[in-house]
Amino acid sequence: MIENLLDQPFANWMKDGAEDDDIVLASRIRLARNLEGIPFPQRANIEQLAKVVSQMHESLDDLNAMKQADYMFVDLEKIPLLERLVLVEKYIISPDHARKAEKRALLVNVDTTASIMVNEEDHIRIQSIMPGLNLTEAFSLADQIDDTIENKHDIAFNEQLGYLTACPTNLGTGLRASVMLHLPALVLTKQMNHIVNAVTQIGLTVRGLYGEGSEANGNIFQISNQLALGFTEQAIIDNLYNIVKQVVDHERAGRAELYREATDTLVDRVWRSYGILRYARSISGQEALSMLSDVRLGCDLGIIDKSPLCNFNELMVITRPNFLQKLSNQPELDSVERRQLRATIIREKIKQEGI
Amino acid sequence: MIENLLDQPFANWMKDGAEDDDIVLASRIRLARNLEGIPFPQRANIEQLAKVVSQMHESLDDLNAMKQADYMFVDLEKIPLLERLVLVEKYIISPDHARKAEKRALLVNVDTTASIMVNEEDHIRIQSIMPGLNLTEAFSLADQIDDTIENKHDIAFNEQLGYLTACPTNLGTGLRASVMLHLPALVLTKQMNHIVNAVTQIGLTVRGLYGEGSEANGNIFQISNQLALGFTEQAIIDNLYNIVKQVVDHERAGRAELYREATDTLVDRVWRSYGILRYARSISGQEALSMLSDVRLGCDLGIIDKSPLCNFNELMVITRPNFLQKLSNQPELDSVERRQLRATIIREKIKQEGI
Repeated sequence: MIENLLDQPFANWMKDGAEDDDIVLASRIRLARNLEGIPFPQRANIEQLAKVVSQMHESLDDLNAMKQADYMFVDLEKIPLLERLVLVEKYIISPDHARKAEKRALLVNVDTTASIMVNEEDHIRIQSIMPGLNLTEAFSLADQIDDTIENKHDIAFNEQLGYLTACPTNLGTGLRASVMLHLPALVLTKQMNHIVNAVTQIGLTVRGLYGEGSEANGNIFQISNQLALGFTEQAIIDNLYNIVKQVVDHERAGRAELYREATDTLVDRVWRSYGILRYARSISGQEALSMLSDVRLGCDLGIIDKSPLCNFNELMVITRPNFLQKLSNQPELDSVERRQLRATIIREKIKQEGI
Repeated sequence: MIENLLDQPFANWMKDGAEDDDIVLASRIRLARNLEGIPFPQRANIEQLAKVVSQMHESLDDLNAMKQADYMFVDLEKIPLLERLVLVEKYIISPDHARKAEKRALLVNVDTTASIMVNEEDHIRIQSIMPGLNLTEAFSLADQIDDTIENKHDIAFNEQLGYLTACPTNLGTGLRASVMLHLPALVLTKQMNHIVNAVTQIGLTVRGLYGEGSEANGNIFQISNQLALGFTEQAIIDNLYNIVKQVVDHERAGRAELYREATDTLVDRVWRSYGILRYARSISGQEALSMLSDVRLGCDLGIIDKSPLCNFNELMVITRPNFLQKLSNQPELDSVERRQLRATIIREKIKQEGI
């Protein structure tokens, strides 16, 4: 089952048909929780960490009893770094969690819509990810998992502060709600800085594709709440939802404007990117992402009718370095080989396509 | 018949199968001649120019009597500037000849392997152009035309100086032999400056695609003799032939080296250019030429098996601005429309291609 998780780029949150999924790639909910009476992971000793892992392993049956999907327990110490990094590229665990694997574990369901990182920054980090703009369903699943865990374990909670967490920004609800957006028109029409400023001023954070400090490769941005304290979960989610809706409207207006005022340039750009993706023999991750972003925009605007390259989410994962390494089944790819394999995979996706 | 000349990009000198035609695109011979007793065109008055035109018109029957191919007489005053510029892009007349059309004329055969500019810099400029490295056949045809004309008209000739011409560099034989070469490997391996220096030192000239001062767009260069005096025609042609053979050898070695030492980079470059040509919706003349040069190199090296885009010579003409204007049958294309039409024509060439 873990092989499937590692070898298949596709995950359930990549499915089509969700709200605003021409712009919103995915919605994610994360709940930070800690077990009562055990120090936070950074201050815990090996025995204490092991105790957390074993307690969470015990929850596997309870999670399966939810009948949402089959869950599996992954002892991160027992899988190689490469596989842990593939899990990062699939948005299942964080880079920190992949690198520090001692007494770290993961619970994840088969469709990867839900996972629990054990002993990351907090003892328990419940995550749920859904396609499109769907914070409600993501929260509902995370909340259900939270209830299941809290039924069995004592969770650190303070009447005044709410859930206790390692980092004070997570205090309170322990909730981080985030939405991944594809915003090529706002970037092309140079409105993105303005959006980032506005969104930041009302207490939200905007980041690039792979978390804090990462650049907005492929015109992909994540918007999330900054504080988890002082609001109910619903208020945090509603606030994010409303802001994201406005950003989506701006992006949609930007696309309409681009299509109206610079159709020729835009159509040319989209098709050139398609042409390069279709025929290149070597391509960097950053270039691939940028060209895939163009093609995806072309798909959304009807410039490209239908193509496997429209599946941006899946290709974003396929073309990541560690996923490629895993896929190659070879000792270690150098950057040249990786660029070539990336180009080959993209090419194979569309070689039969008659456009 | 003139319509054919203007609408068809293909000319006989674009045919495949000639010597070294993977590198040598065409060979050209030009003989400068002037009628005895009439001032050179720059110093002649309208009546004198008209007299030259009428005398050359009289030669039409003699040229046809050669039974080489059907010739036609074109009064350049009577066709619009655009059509004269198309003739320039087809290498039939010079830019000067197109712009100053008063009492200017042209004799040209249907396969455009031979033409005579009347009242360009000299009264008579005989030109013959052949595919590949074939100076001998080109000279033989030009020489035959020269004999035909000299049989009827008195040509300005001095026992000491040879043929008298408006510009002293043409004095003597009046011969300019030139070879058009596609030298991408010498450019990519940065050997071209060295070649230009060496070739210049032994009395030859290297220029870009469209004559003096033009840049080497598409890695196309013309090599020709600098002086027409002090050598026999055969010596001038042999000298050029020998040097071109050496340049061809260098280019071939450069291609082999590129293919050996940078295969991946080269293959990627060729296919990316193919991809852009195949899908772009707008393309400048310079970019098209540069990408076509890559693709042509790919065809020569077997990277691309077979494609209409390998027909570099024809596409070089098709994608020139005035040819596009003529092709469009529209009042006047602006540069945006021209870029789009160029992309459309290239795309149409290969849209059925299954590679």
